[in-house]
Amino acid sequence: MPIAIQDTYPEPAAHCYGCGRLNEFGYQIKTRADRDVTVTEFVPASYHTAFIDSTYGGLIASIIDCHSTGSAAIFAMHADGEEIGSDPSPRFVTAHLEVDYLAPTPLLPMRLVGSALEIKERKVIVGTELLVEGEVTAKGSAVLVRIDQD
Amino acid sequence: MPIAIQDTYPEPAAHCYGCGRLNEFGYQIKTRADRDVTVTEFVPASYHTAFIDSTYGGLIASIIDCHSTGSAAIFAMHADGEEIGSDPSPRFVTAHLEVDYLAPTPLLPMRLVGSALEIKERKVIVGTELLVEGEVTAKGSAVLVRIDQD
Repeated sequence: MPIAIQDTYPEPAAHCYGCGRLNEFGYQIKTRADRDVTVTEFVPASYHTAFIDSTYGGLIASIIDCHSTGSAAIFAMHADGEEIGSDPSPRFVTAHLEVDYLAPTPLLPMRLVGSALEIKERKVIVGTELLVEGEVTAKGSAVLVRIDQD
Repeated sequence: MPIAIQDTYPEPAAHCYGCGRLNEFGYQIKTRADRDVTVTEFVPASYHTAFIDSTYGGLIASIIDCHSTGSAAIFAMHADGEEIGSDPSPRFVTAHLEVDYLAPTPLLPMRLVGSALEIKERKVIVGTELLVEGEVTAKGSAVLVRIDQD
């Protein structure tokens, strides 16, 4: 399994509640390259409910958000011919996030698949499909902006 | 202080991780009418970080989401001449959510102010400004759809 981009973030970027490996209370999501897409798997907790049998929309937005920042770093590195885990990873933050909730998302493990819709030097746009049991229940689009790191 | 709309939701709608009064692990946000706008106050936890001194964007999206569903119910009731807390509250779910992150949001108490951008029988559009210490750091827009309740 390829290394997760979040495991390569420098320490100041590793405290995010959604994806920071150093945030012990957070979701600690992991996003990996899979050929020309990116993949994040996440298992919601029993209390991450909207209605009692569906997943909270804010959690869906949260996971899409961090999946998108990680995906942007992966896509930018691939575009520059860099190798995840060997070269320093750039860090992107979210400027704009959109989520379409297409159907109730069952409270089950989710799989997010990210595609690069645009890759520029300082801006990447990531499209995401969120699937549960193979069905797309939500779609995301995020504009990520590259930030300088110390 | 006027009653929070979430305290009037029927039981099946009161388990939401963001705004359900019966979800003991959730955020339990409270949204109240304030003349022609709606207001939600929320205090992030110390671990709701993006970078170490800023608030996680997924949390911001989450709070905007639930603030918007609650606001939609308030705006729909006001449009029908109904009184919050006396008449049964309708329930809205999110079809589309957008967030613009304008600046890093300090990890401090946040205030969300919602406005009705459109009110139709089964669809309400809510615009939200998120302020910390009086400064708008994020803006939201959500399309909410009314659902039938048992």
